[in-house]
Amino acid sequence: MNIERPTIRLKPKSDSRHLRRGFPWVYDNELVTDRRTRALPAGTIARLEDADRKPIATVTVNPASKIFARLLDRDPEAVIDRHWIATRLTRALQTRTALFDAPFYRLIHAEADGFPGVIIDRFGDAAVIQPNAAWADARLDEIVEVLAQVTGVSVVVKSGSGRARSLEGLDDASAVLLGSIEAPVAVVMNGATYMADLLGGQKTGLFYDQRPNHAFVARLAKGTDVLDVFSHVGGFALSALAGGARSALCVDGSNAALTLAWAGAKASGVADRFDSRTADAFVAMSALAEEGRTFGTVICDPPAFAPHKGARDAGLRAYEKVARLGAALVAPDGTLTLCSCSHAVDAEQFRAASLRGIGRAARSCQILRTSFAGPDHPQHPQLAESGYLKAMTFRLLG
Amino acid sequence: MNIERPTIRLKPKSDSRHLRRGFPWVYDNELVTDRRTRALPAGTIARLEDADRKPIATVTVNPASKIFARLLDRDPEAVIDRHWIATRLTRALQTRTALFDAPFYRLIHAEADGFPGVIIDRFGDAAVIQPNAAWADARLDEIVEVLAQVTGVSVVVKSGSGRARSLEGLDDASAVLLGSIEAPVAVVMNGATYMADLLGGQKTGLFYDQRPNHAFVARLAKGTDVLDVFSHVGGFALSALAGGARSALCVDGSNAALTLAWAGAKASGVADRFDSRTADAFVAMSALAEEGRTFGTVICDPPAFAPHKGARDAGLRAYEKVARLGAALVAPDGTLTLCSCSHAVDAEQFRAASLRGIGRAARSCQILRTSFAGPDHPQHPQLAESGYLKAMTFRLLG
Repeated sequence: MNIERPTIRLKPKSDSRHLRRGFPWVYDNELVTDRRTRALPAGTIARLEDADRKPIATVTVNPASKIFARLLDRDPEAVIDRHWIATRLTRALQTRTALFDAPFYRLIHAEADGFPGVIIDRFGDAAVIQPNAAWADARLDEIVEVLAQVTGVSVVVKSGSGRARSLEGLDDASAVLLGSIEAPVAVVMNGATYMADLLGGQKTGLFYDQRPNHAFVARLAKGTDVLDVFSHVGGFALSALAGGARSALCVDGSNAALTLAWAGAKASGVADRFDSRTADAFVAMSALAEEGRTFGTVICDPPAFAPHKGARDAGLRAYEKVARLGAALVAPDGTLTLCSCSHAVDAEQFRAASLRGIGRAARSCQILRTSFAGPDHPQHPQLAESGYLKAMTFRLLG
Repeated sequence: MNIERPTIRLKPKSDSRHLRRGFPWVYDNELVTDRRTRALPAGTIARLEDADRKPIATVTVNPASKIFARLLDRDPEAVIDRHWIATRLTRALQTRTALFDAPFYRLIHAEADGFPGVIIDRFGDAAVIQPNAAWADARLDEIVEVLAQVTGVSVVVKSGSGRARSLEGLDDASAVLLGSIEAPVAVVMNGATYMADLLGGQKTGLFYDQRPNHAFVARLAKGTDVLDVFSHVGGFALSALAGGARSALCVDGSNAALTLAWAGAKASGVADRFDSRTADAFVAMSALAEEGRTFGTVICDPPAFAPHKGARDAGLRAYEKVARLGAALVAPDGTLTLCSCSHAVDAEQFRAASLRGIGRAARSCQILRTSFAGPDHPQHPQLAESGYLKAMTFRLLG
């Protein structure tokens, strides 16, 4: 027997193979929409049917979004209840428990973990949730309750910032949903202690995605002077100092982020080797070059210069400039690590822009490593472009 | 004053920008060749000039190869002597010493380490060299002598196997060039002990390139049963057992490789959890499926199915088949790691073929990790397609 729920249907003669293979989004122009479907409240659970009225999947709809429907379950009769939520959270938790020694990780990475539009980062006893799709916003209480049961966290914070929510027509309010929290949280990764501001920080307060890249650079940085440009709370710098770097200088435009980096340096016991400059990164890199400074290890991890396709060309020029300015600050035979978190720039384009920049700084190089976000940021197989983070480490020769 | 050496010259009006930017190869059809240049002995050091007779670089020539000249140094007057060899070996050694706790690694990765066509793998006190370009074959005594001085190795073996040598018109003889060696060498990596046969093994006896991928899979494999297909000497299986896997079954067509895997299992103290089958991998995977066997961790690391462009389509079909047969053997929520070492298949093509195979086995998945060869296998910036090794780990859902 079928569950009572609204039905939405693909347009006549349309191809449903990508959806049957698990593609998780249905755009509004793929569907037969009328006054009834347009009036469905955002977050409604519905049955998706193909043009021949054969059911395909259980979806959630948001008439206000270009992504009209998101696939929740390939079973068209799936019941989206506490048990369903618990099953997916448990599976995600098992992977993270296998991967990490301590409970600090991204627990839910949206579509790839079967939670369309939802991000959950865990910081020990606390979790930060970004319910960036209407269904999750509507069922937030339920998700938070199950999250606490499955993981044992006693604090849950909602982060409402970010572009994704406005595309879904959601508010940008942040709030403490469970328990209470006051000071920044201490997070131990790669031997360093980071301070994460779960309420006022960027996105969810700390970026877990760079963890394996932090570890790799820390290894190479031993005994060198480190320059961490666009440092945020000191991701690369603190792990490098913990791994034996001689010194580290963080550059960021945000004084709040650098204050947390400094607090992290103190908590890590490396404050005597830590320095920072609150400055525009481009200005700071030029100034350091004029001062004649060089560093055995330089990292540039800028914000997304090309967040969408229209910004790609300008973004690639910005990545090239970062590479050029960064390369000029690398000591002979030192390393340069360049990162991009732009969806619209792929690994090859980013490599080419980086190599152009290094070439314009008149440096030769070898590519030591190309990598992506850590494994607590899995990819959905049909959204492999969600491999947004690229990190490349170059050794500059001579 | 210029050094006395032969000159080779680009054809009139030809573009030399790629060479000035460091592209390391000059094809025979780019050059003015005559009886004089055709008669140059393979391995001759020469001066490369552009069409206007301006010197570009110091090269080595091999009239028998399609790659007529290989760039040795961007300085057209560079002296290719013991000092030059020592400088490059020392720089490569510094990187590896920073990266690894013990002296087991690829020391020289050809063009990317400034040694065109030359591979040197280090196994503690021993090294295996593949001098796959005429210049290195001609100067082998000198290279071996400097290699021993710089690294302190007391044994050097020449491995003459592989397609690269025949393209250069070189013999396929292997030999012990320095010291003596009898038994397989013990190599400790990721907590396991591998046995490497430096004289009779494939390529240089052990594949270091998968080291970070072994470590990642070992972490996920804890407590699971492991199937390592195309196992060679047990790369994935032994590190998984050392990391706490419940059992491991190695499948390989080579009895010699499996004998070394078994010896490695004994040396690692995990022989009680180790099993092997000498068999064609496709036949063995089908047989295991018929036996109803499943494994929490499955790895398939086949030989290059697409070693050149002409073999790409057939190779992709073979990768799809491996993925399909492998996926059918993965237990619910288990992981599948698929590898390709085919130059002619890029990461996207490999991912697509793998996903097709997983889909044909009627399994859903998330992509946990995409990675490449370890950092002791750097890439030359102008030969980034030399990123031959791809490794992808999928979690199969339900």
